[in-house]
Amino acid sequence: MENSGLEWKRESGRKVFDCPVFLVNEYVCRSPDGLRRTYTVMDTADWVIVVPVLEDSGEKEFVMVKQWRHGSQGLSLEFPGGVFESGEDAPTAAARELREETAWRAGKMRKLGEFRPNPAIMSNTVHIFLAEDLRFTGAQELDEDEYIETLRVKPRDLIEGMGRPPYVHALMGAALALYLREYPQIP
Amino acid sequence: MENSGLEWKRESGRKVFDCPVFLVNEYVCRSPDGLRRTYTVMDTADWVIVVPVLEDSGEKEFVMVKQWRHGSQGLSLEFPGGVFESGEDAPTAAARELREETAWRAGKMRKLGEFRPNPAIMSNTVHIFLAEDLRFTGAQELDEDEYIETLRVKPRDLIEGMGRPPYVHALMGAALALYLREYPQIP
Repeated sequence: MENSGLEWKRESGRKVFDCPVFLVNEYVCRSPDGLRRTYTVMDTADWVIVVPVLEDSGEKEFVMVKQWRHGSQGLSLEFPGGVFESGEDAPTAAARELREETAWRAGKMRKLGEFRPNPAIMSNTVHIFLAEDLRFTGAQELDEDEYIETLRVKPRDLIEGMGRPPYVHALMGAALALYLREYPQIP
Repeated sequence: MENSGLEWKRESGRKVFDCPVFLVNEYVCRSPDGLRRTYTVMDTADWVIVVPVLEDSGEKEFVMVKQWRHGSQGLSLEFPGGVFESGEDAPTAAARELREETAWRAGKMRKLGEFRPNPAIMSNTVHIFLAEDLRFTGAQELDEDEYIETLRVKPRDLIEGMGRPPYVHALMGAALALYLREYPQIP
C-alpha cells in the first residue's frame, strides 16, 4: 500500500512510565505536511493466541479457558494465549501457552495470521495459530496467580456468543475471524 | 457464568500515570483463596467501531479508512471508529465517527455486539455497530492531526486480507467476526 501522503516520521521519544507488563513512551512525530505532535504509546512484548480444535467423529470443539481478568473486572472465556517469554519465537510461545494453560499439546500447529492489538496506542503484535491433532498431557502448568478452568466449546456456541459475556475478549473475536476464513462452513 | 472459584476482589487502587489518552492505575487484588497481588490496568474511555455497508445492485462494499497509526508505526486499513467524547452514548459516538471520518451518514444503524479490547490490562469496552442505508454528506470533518483516506473494500478482499497488512488492526477482525455471524454467505 502506498505510504505517500499519510506517513508520519518519529523524531524523538522518551520513556514516561514503566511497570513489569509494559512501558509507556511519548514520541514526537512529524506529519506529511510538517505538523509536529506528541503521541503516547504502550510498548510491550508480543502476544500469542492459539485456537485449539479437537475433532471427534467429525464433530469439532474448541478448547477454551475461563479466567478472571483484572482490566475488565470480570470472567472471560477465551482461547489460550499469553505473552512471549524472553527469547521465544511465535511457534514456541504458542506451544508453551497451549500446554501450560490447557494441558493439551498439538501434533499440528500453523499460523492463521497476525494483528496489531491496538495500532493506535500499542506497538506490539498478536500472532494467531491453529492447533490440531491434540494430545492430552494430563496437567496444566499455571503461575501461582493463574486460576484457569478449561472448557470445551462447540463452534456454534462460540460464534453465537461472541461479543457478549463471557465471550468478551476482542482478540478472540479477531482470532475467530481468521478461523472462519479457513472454515466458513461450521455446522 | 459461575464466578465462584475464579473471581478476584479489588481491595485498593492508586493512579501511577496519566496522559490525555489514558490513565494507568495499580490495583491490589485478592484471589479466591486469599493470594494478594498488584495488577496494572490502563483505564480509558470506551471506543466505537462502525461497519458501514454500501449496497448497490445487490453488491456490497465496506467503507473503510486508511490512516497512519503511531503505535504500530505503519498504515492501517480499518472500519471507521474512535473514542467516545464526553457525555456521548454508543449510538451517538458511532454516528459521529462515521460522519467525521468518512462523510457518510447511516439511515439504519444497529449494534452487533461489544468486546473488551483487552480485558487483562484495559478496563474499557468497544461497541460495534452495523451502518446501512448510507447517504453521502460531502465532506469529512477531521481533527488537525487526522489524515484519513476513505476507500471502498469488497467483502471478499477484506476477509482474504484480514490478519495481514494493511488489515492489521485486531479490533477490525473482531468486528468482522460479528458481521460474518450475521452475513456468513458473503460472495
